[in-house]
Amino acid sequence: MATMQDNQTWSGRFNEPVAELVKRYTASVDFDKRLALFDIRGSLAHAQMLAACGIISVQDLNDIQRGLAQIENEIIEGDFVWQLDLEDVHLNIEKRLTTLVGDAGKRLHTGRSRNDQVATDIRLYLRSAIDDIVALLKGLQAALLDLAQHHTHTIMPGFTHLQVAQPVSFAHHLMAYFEMCQRDVERFTDARRRVNRLPLGAAALAGTSYPIKREMVAELLGFEAVCHNSLDAVSDRDFAIEFTAASALTMTHLSRLSEELILWMSPRFGFIDIADRFCTGSSIMPQKKNPDVPELVRGKTGRVNGHLVALLTLMKGQPLAYNKDNQEDKEPLFDTVDTLTQTLRIYADMIGGIKVKPEAMRRAALQGYATATDLADYLVKKGLPFRDAHEAVALAVRFAEQRNADLSDLKLEELQQFSALIGDDIYGVLTLEGSLAARNHTGGTAPQQVEAAIARARRLL
Amino acid sequence: MATMQDNQTWSGRFNEPVAELVKRYTASVDFDKRLALFDIRGSLAHAQMLAACGIISVQDLNDIQRGLAQIENEIIEGDFVWQLDLEDVHLNIEKRLTTLVGDAGKRLHTGRSRNDQVATDIRLYLRSAIDDIVALLKGLQAALLDLAQHHTHTIMPGFTHLQVAQPVSFAHHLMAYFEMCQRDVERFTDARRRVNRLPLGAAALAGTSYPIKREMVAELLGFEAVCHNSLDAVSDRDFAIEFTAASALTMTHLSRLSEELILWMSPRFGFIDIADRFCTGSSIMPQKKNPDVPELVRGKTGRVNGHLVALLTLMKGQPLAYNKDNQEDKEPLFDTVDTLTQTLRIYADMIGGIKVKPEAMRRAALQGYATATDLADYLVKKGLPFRDAHEAVALAVRFAEQRNADLSDLKLEELQQFSALIGDDIYGVLTLEGSLAARNHTGGTAPQQVEAAIARARRLL
Amino acid sequence: MATMQDNQTWSGRFNEPVAELVKRYTASVDFDKRLALFDIRGSLAHAQMLAACGIISVQDLNDIQRGLAQIENEIIEGDFVWQLDLEDVHLNIEKRLTTLVGDAGKRLHTGRSRNDQVATDIRLYLRSAIDDIVALLKGLQAALLDLAQHHTHTIMPGFTHLQVAQPVSFAHHLMAYFEMCQRDVERFTDARRRVNRLPLGAAALAGTSYPIKREMVAELLGFEAVCHNSLDAVSDRDFAIEFTAASALTMTHLSRLSEELILWMSPRFGFIDIADRFCTGSSIMPQKKNPDVPELVRGKTGRVNGHLVALLTLMKGQPLAYNKDNQEDKEPLFDTVDTLTQTLRIYADMIGGIKVKPEAMRRAALQGYATATDLADYLVKKGLPFRDAHEAVALAVRFAEQRNADLSDLKLEELQQFSALIGDDIYGVLTLEGSLAARNHTGGTAPQQVEAAIARARRLL
Amino acid sequence: MATMQDNQTWSGRFNEPVAELVKRYTASVDFDKRLALFDIRGSLAHAQMLAACGIISVQDLNDIQRGLAQIENEIIEGDFVWQLDLEDVHLNIEKRLTTLVGDAGKRLHTGRSRNDQVATDIRLYLRSAIDDIVALLKGLQAALLDLAQHHTHTIMPGFTHLQVAQPVSFAHHLMAYFEMCQRDVERFTDARRRVNRLPLGAAALAGTSYPIKREMVAELLGFEAVCHNSLDAVSDRDFAIEFTAASALTMTHLSRLSEELILWMSPRFGFIDIADRFCTGSSIMPQKKNPDVPELVRGKTGRVNGHLVALLTLMKGQPLAYNKDNQEDKEPLFDTVDTLTQTLRIYADMIGGIKVKPEAMRRAALQGYATATDLADYLVKKGLPFRDAHEAVALAVRFAEQRNADLSDLKLEELQQFSALIGDDIYGVLTLEGSLAARNHTGGTAPQQVEAAIARARRLL
Repeated sequence: MATMQDNQTWSGRFNEPVAELVKRYTASVDFDKRLALFDIRGSLAHAQMLAACGIISVQDLNDIQRGLAQIENEIIEGDFVWQLDLEDVHLNIEKRLTTLVGDAGKRLHTGRSRNDQVATDIRLYLRSAIDDIVALLKGLQAALLDLAQHHTHTIMPGFTHLQVAQPVSFAHHLMAYFEMCQRDVERFTDARRRVNRLPLGAAALAGTSYPIKREMVAELLGFEAVCHNSLDAVSDRDFAIEFTAASALTMTHLSRLSEELILWMSPRFGFIDIADRFCTGSSIMPQKKNPDVPELVRGKTGRVNGHLVALLTLMKGQPLAYNKDNQEDKEPLFDTVDTLTQTLRIYADMIGGIKVKPEAMRRAALQGYATATDLADYLVKKGLPFRDAHEAVALAVRFAEQRNADLSDLKLEELQQFSALIGDDIYGVLTLEGSLAARNHTGGTAPQQVEAAIARARRLL
Repeated sequence: MATMQDNQTWSGRFNEPVAELVKRYTASVDFDKRLALFDIRGSLAHAQMLAACGIISVQDLNDIQRGLAQIENEIIEGDFVWQLDLEDVHLNIEKRLTTLVGDAGKRLHTGRSRNDQVATDIRLYLRSAIDDIVALLKGLQAALLDLAQHHTHTIMPGFTHLQVAQPVSFAHHLMAYFEMCQRDVERFTDARRRVNRLPLGAAALAGTSYPIKREMVAELLGFEAVCHNSLDAVSDRDFAIEFTAASALTMTHLSRLSEELILWMSPRFGFIDIADRFCTGSSIMPQKKNPDVPELVRGKTGRVNGHLVALLTLMKGQPLAYNKDNQEDKEPLFDTVDTLTQTLRIYADMIGGIKVKPEAMRRAALQGYATATDLADYLVKKGLPFRDAHEAVALAVRFAEQRNADLSDLKLEELQQFSALIGDDIYGVLTLEGSLAARNHTGGTAPQQVEAAIARARRLL
Repeated sequence: MATMQDNQTWSGRFNEPVAELVKRYTASVDFDKRLALFDIRGSLAHAQMLAACGIISVQDLNDIQRGLAQIENEIIEGDFVWQLDLEDVHLNIEKRLTTLVGDAGKRLHTGRSRNDQVATDIRLYLRSAIDDIVALLKGLQAALLDLAQHHTHTIMPGFTHLQVAQPVSFAHHLMAYFEMCQRDVERFTDARRRVNRLPLGAAALAGTSYPIKREMVAELLGFEAVCHNSLDAVSDRDFAIEFTAASALTMTHLSRLSEELILWMSPRFGFIDIADRFCTGSSIMPQKKNPDVPELVRGKTGRVNGHLVALLTLMKGQPLAYNKDNQEDKEPLFDTVDTLTQTLRIYADMIGGIKVKPEAMRRAALQGYATATDLADYLVKKGLPFRDAHEAVALAVRFAEQRNADLSDLKLEELQQFSALIGDDIYGVLTLEGSLAARNHTGGTAPQQVEAAIARARRLL
Repeated sequence: MATMQDNQTWSGRFNEPVAELVKRYTASVDFDKRLALFDIRGSLAHAQMLAACGIISVQDLNDIQRGLAQIENEIIEGDFVWQLDLEDVHLNIEKRLTTLVGDAGKRLHTGRSRNDQVATDIRLYLRSAIDDIVALLKGLQAALLDLAQHHTHTIMPGFTHLQVAQPVSFAHHLMAYFEMCQRDVERFTDARRRVNRLPLGAAALAGTSYPIKREMVAELLGFEAVCHNSLDAVSDRDFAIEFTAASALTMTHLSRLSEELILWMSPRFGFIDIADRFCTGSSIMPQKKNPDVPELVRGKTGRVNGHLVALLTLMKGQPLAYNKDNQEDKEPLFDTVDTLTQTLRIYADMIGGIKVKPEAMRRAALQGYATATDLADYLVKKGLPFRDAHEAVALAVRFAEQRNADLSDLKLEELQQFSALIGDDIYGVLTLEGSLAARNHTGGTAPQQVEAAIARARRLL
């Protein structure tokens, strides 16, 4: 901490001031000022407790409250002057407070350290970010439901290995992403419980010699409990890594949907169009309309994965308690929060701006023997063991492919070459609608099931 | 799937057999055979449901049960012959079943696909692994408690930045790791809920046309619920990534403890000795006794982080539903489970084999002005604002350092140069015991608090 | 090192044997036995030097050579019995040597340590792997050239953002991958120079007190130079990390080609077909033919990225010199080598098995206004500034799109609405062939340029 | 590209303007403006070539040169107004140019695209960054040499596994890092060759229809050659990933040195002191002086590793040619350059500010049986096979340890219990100086060798 007097040396213990280069290298105020309002909130609760415990006077508390209120206002108004010389958000605010209210400002740091202070700030910040993210995830889920609602009967080819597999409804496909988002919500909710614990009172690492009441601070700040070990409280950041891992998974889910939107909007698929306002053009090719947003989302997944690696690497092998390495936790964390919230915000909008092209989907579903499995199932229901049915249909597909025909284009006699069990009721089985309707169980693509899934999802939100 | 007849071609649809090189490149049986018993368990539940729904006959069910029982036995006895030609664990078992019981074997695959089958196997496997890991974590926690119990009064220097900060008890330090493990247990328990859902019935991707009852299978296998969307069920592996992220955090915690054990056992610290049975020597230097186990744990953290990156990279940008990329999920996952379980098993033992050297710890705590904060707090309690007290003590430390003396070595007059508030009651404050006892609040290092923390922890286990 | 006498304890310095669990946890012989032949080669050179320097007798050298020749043979024949109790490949071989030839075996380790020995083994192994990989990369390049040769006039749509951009030839597209492979070859060649340095003689960390000649050993083993600092020689693995990073880039290149092969083989594109022998089918959907190999390659990219992270994490923050963490360098490295060599081997084959469908490519190129840029360039050549030409064509595209027509379908009068500069020579400009031929400069897609590029590439190989 | 007229819509092809949220999400000008001067330099060379080839007039060239000169000046002076509406650095500059010089500005983009333009800018930027980094690495090497020069006879314990292994000189230890830096220099130099290739002329992806001369542009910009394939030129970023991997290795080397500085400055070691100007204190503990800089360097290693993962993830599986994902390449790259250059700059200074404490090093070297290997070597030279000598010394160490004595404290008779070969010349062998001097071969720690290594290193710089 820079000496309050002159900001030039690291307290009386040091023989020379910190080098300019070092100051810039080690200062964090450029990025941790984002924590300012949380820092003030934490300081207010701390001061209130100090006064309640008789560690500072009521007059001091009043001074601190008045000073911090003014500082909060200065920050919100953009009038606060941040100084690199004062290293970080904490010292910048404390120094200003002392300027404003004198000795009471110097007493605010009684019974705490920047180690527990910054851990508290990050947790308050992250708790708030999680609440935002969960709300945004629910917004995206709602957008998916709104779109799905109209497409329980819109048939597209379900792909595996990007080869046509079986017909599914577009609604069913969208609902897969609803489910992924639902698990994301759960994960963030679980992580929140571990974030929402109070480190303050751990002081530098061992606790403090003042008769503090940590439970009171926890209650004032809405924490569910206090951290039960002071060394752990100041040194671990597992809650931030857990949050980043959950974010990487959400981005991974969105990158998958993005990949599909990009494919579907390619003229080779032509399944959807994304509204112009989510696309940009080319500086050279006048015809271009590019799905920039989903492409960026796909790219930004790497960014969040990178932050996860940065945090894990950073923490690995650190001895207790606090080491300066931990200062590097903030930028990856902040950027993860920004990336995820911006992405979720734009994504919900974009889903609402999708124009579906059912005919193109249908045309594609008709190509690629999407109902071959239905033929096999048909044979099984007539008594053939599944493996034998599978083989018979494989041969039929090969036959049809050589004729450049679909299975439903084959004549009954042709089909019967592959199994005498085939009757003329087969043509109903081979339709897309027949195939869809047949998958009528929990989780299946039959319209009735998907409608039920949508209704259940609405209740969840 | 290789044709049952000759294993040479990929069903009648193919014109040439799979190349040998391709077979080796794509086959997974070498590693997924580890899932065999889970695969059998899943098949038994599936068959039971098929029979209950009238999709296969009771006779078929009996045949399948008899065949699978024999296969299970062969696998356990090591008599089962795994064939690369049959690609994976699923086809190896199914083919053997058909050999043993004929057509009933060919009927087992009715209404399912390898896509939902493998997803089910992995979830059964992972649920079991989580249960093991949670038990092992509790074992490690118990070992930490047993060691801590004896050391609530053993004083060591608490470090920040690897500089002496304040005295803490060895028990308090160990309890920081108890807390980390506790959050690890929570994380695995949370992840388990998301693992414990049934994908079976999703079939290839869209569900099946047979009148199946997925809820019945879920109940038979102990799943909490079914996956609500078939596309999601076969294509997402977020549960496995979440598990791996939780594992990376546990390894990160252990890497930190390992770093400390290595430091503490270095002659420069000499705080502990690790029992010979956990160490190895040198092929060239006869005097060496190396803490191999904690070093390997530290190194293996990178391994698990790498697996996490592999899984995230693998999943990113994949369109729905199943793609072969997903086959690559297994080896990183299996190796993560192995690494973590072995590490936890050995770690609990090793903690029990630590010999503590309290005198060395105490000697180190006496060097480095560990009680300087106590002097500052003392001045605050006499009325000085904290910032001014901090500055006064900083100057006192500088003075003492130049004399190569500890603060408690200074004479009262010398101390009083820095503040007239210092009286002769200061020497009690400057003792290690005084400093320790003063941090007497929840989470603090005072013996009374740590004893309470240990008692609370015992109740938790 | 286990005592030679009884393998039970770590030399006379230890009071208890290594625990069974620890033995399994710390032993590396299961995976480092892969280094056996390199270990023997290194030992032979070391022994030859020891004898040349008079450190061991000629008789000892003869015994060692005889013994190692027998051991090499036993290993190749699969008769060598590897013992977990002997920890690693080095001690297994040394112990066997002593059994075979007595005291000469005990003298082999004079003037070296396992630290420099294993570093030497890994470098010999990696040098050999690099040579294999470079040869395989050239094989893949040759396969790309062979395919490109036939397709300098095969027109496909060049995509950006997966939207149709401009026509390119399939040959030109393939040649992009030739260039990537060429840089990969360069990178491995550069890395080889840093791999190809001799650590032996560094002994444990500080060198040895015997009058050794490291340069002689370097020459015998084909190393370009000796490592110039003993501490560096035993403790750094940057060469292995550099190799893994180069491998990750090669896999990344292949993952991009794989993504394209998967897209092109999807019925939505239908640009190519991959020979049946590189594909597999489905256990449930009889019609499926899946591009398993490119999908696995895409997935395995994550695996290699993960290994890179594992190695970087492992090395980060390690103090000098050797720490046991480094034992964890081998498995990621070996698996990277295996993954890359198998992938390259199969890939060159698969490229040869691609069936191109020029009509489908052409059909796709005709859809999406691929020659709009040519129209803009035409206007520029007639005097319009580029930005104005771009805008004029953008409006023409919008007009055509509303009519569901291509630009070349518009009548001259219609086109002239957007610029009076358009004459009837425009229709030649709007053809795919005209567009292709026009890009006639180094690196452009004009057939003449691509033929020159292929010829240049042939000379390079 | 935003229409030049009104910046509201994406050219005439679009029906609605880009949404505000999308604009912020997709615009890159906030970070890519860092490329501005390189962008201008590239544009000047491009324009010069266009004029030389008769594609634009000399008057246009003059206008462009005048306009860009003014813009360059505005940027340097901080007067340039960057607009988010204009997306990126390229369009901001082009738009301003058109405002300044009219139609000539609209002609600058003839024959190029933003795709090849940005690739050119990044390469120019990175080439310059590499030159800076190589110079900084050499500065660090010089600082290491300056420090080493004075310490070829300063003996410290060489550690393996953080246990005392053998005596080494402090100079020898420092020279290990010189070697690592030397390989880093080589790697950046190798990477520079692959960076230093011209993509311009690739246009959007396929080349351009204008009769351009790419070789002329390459020469004007100092590129060694042109990229030989237009698709490859605009779509690959392997050169940036290679650079980032090299940076990660340099950071890894520095993280190792940092770990050692932190250990050495801990009171438990006390081997060095880092000048006050590189350290900071504590907000609560007045005695603290923390090695912030090396701790941050260790932490920032994770940051660069994370960027490497981000870039690899981003590129994986992208189809050709350009996709918007690639926009995400810049921030990780820029931050890698910043992190590395700042770290190297501060590190060279800090090395110069290290105060060495030779007595503490010597005291530590005397503890831990550092010369046990020398005793074993002594026995070997008297005829005992190495393995037997190793065992004899191990027993001697155990004996000494039980007496809490060093080997050199044992009486001759005591030593002779373990081998009759020991004579009274042994005590010279057991000194630190004797041990050091004995390792007298290339790469060994003998003062003579280290002096030679330093001289050789000086010549290299």
